[in-house]
Amino acid sequence: MLNERLNWRYATKKMDPSKVVPQAKIDQILEAIRLAPTSSGLQPFEVIVVKNPQIREKLREAAYGQAQIIDGTAVLVFAAWADYTDARIDSVVAMHEDQRGTSETLSAYFDGLRKNYVGRDAKVNFEHAARQTYIGLGLAVTAAAFEEVDATPMEGFDPAKFDEILGLAQRGLKSVAVLPVGYRAQDGDWLNGAKKVRRAMDKFVTVVE
Amino acid sequence: MLNERLNWRYATKKMDPSKVVPQAKIDQILEAIRLAPTSSGLQPFEVIVVKNPQIREKLREAAYGQAQIIDGTAVLVFAAWADYTDARIDSVVAMHEDQRGTSETLSAYFDGLRKNYVGRDAKVNFEHAARQTYIGLGLAVTAAAFEEVDATPMEGFDPAKFDEILGLAQRGLKSVAVLPVGYRAQDGDWLNGAKKVRRAMDKFVTVVE
Repeated sequence: MLNERLNWRYATKKMDPSKVVPQAKIDQILEAIRLAPTSSGLQPFEVIVVKNPQIREKLREAAYGQAQIIDGTAVLVFAAWADYTDARIDSVVAMHEDQRGTSETLSAYFDGLRKNYVGRDAKVNFEHAARQTYIGLGLAVTAAAFEEVDATPMEGFDPAKFDEILGLAQRGLKSVAVLPVGYRAQDGDWLNGAKKVRRAMDKFVTVVE
Repeated sequence: MLNERLNWRYATKKMDPSKVVPQAKIDQILEAIRLAPTSSGLQPFEVIVVKNPQIREKLREAAYGQAQIIDGTAVLVFAAWADYTDARIDSVVAMHEDQRGTSETLSAYFDGLRKNYVGRDAKVNFEHAARQTYIGLGLAVTAAAFEEVDATPMEGFDPAKFDEILGLAQRGLKSVAVLPVGYRAQDGDWLNGAKKVRRAMDKFVTVVE
């Protein structure tokens, strides 16, 4: 079931601007991202859903002209926390207490995390957050496939320009990946219908029995 | 459907060693990982499936004693390419040519990639590969949920020790994440049945309309 959907999807190169993804489907994709597991449940990223055509045009320019950004219905920008801070850990603890009640085990756990993360090299923290973000990216692509929505995971963009256009720096966020969602064009996409290329299982997996 | 499965899963803290995950289910999980989208289709990681009890005992010791590593049926170790090399890009190009035929566009694309990646700081390349690996980790967790198999994504382990136990360094690999798969114990798992804690949608997503 899942693998059938993963075989259906591909990194759509040309989207049909006349076909609009219903908001209910975008909501399902966002919910999958929100449910993504992350290290210590930190969810150290946010998602910016850009529908505005003028802003998408600017993003497209900062992404080497990739047309899916304007031809899709929306662009999801995945932005990781630039650093781990006390305030951010506090907000995670508050959320846990709010949803599960207070617990000494919980407090001790997050105190330990604070000791390890806060004040550590911001680059190390950002990379850790970026990795978690990619779990969310993977789930977004999967959720889109379940909704029969096309999506194109992109790293080919200028993160500094994206951050500027979307005002992310002042929010302590850095864009790490972009996912336009829309519908594949019937014509003009060389990748539409191409055989999926993957390493053979025996070159990808080692079994230690 | 997908979100129902994502709500079902949780980071299982105690697994029942008497319940064995059928190989067919493990194969479905591995296939989902293999189908995971990655940057330029590089699939810059491998999966080591450890079933051997003695080796799993060593891994458990290198993972702060976490019992799921021995109580589950197998442990999936996600190991990213330590660096991008000419040989690795060559192997990706050869795979593309083998599966889709030769193409000048393809050659030019991967020549450009080689120019950007090969010889770049190995740490930068490894981090890039590690991010892709987390897409695979996310899909593995999702696939497990579809197979009604429990799984516990872990970063709490000593990567250097894992690499040594599994002989990964000589293969140019570095372990980045670990996923025991098995079945949740009915008793003794404080997290079993606990409310899932996630940030509210309006604190996670910004819409730019």
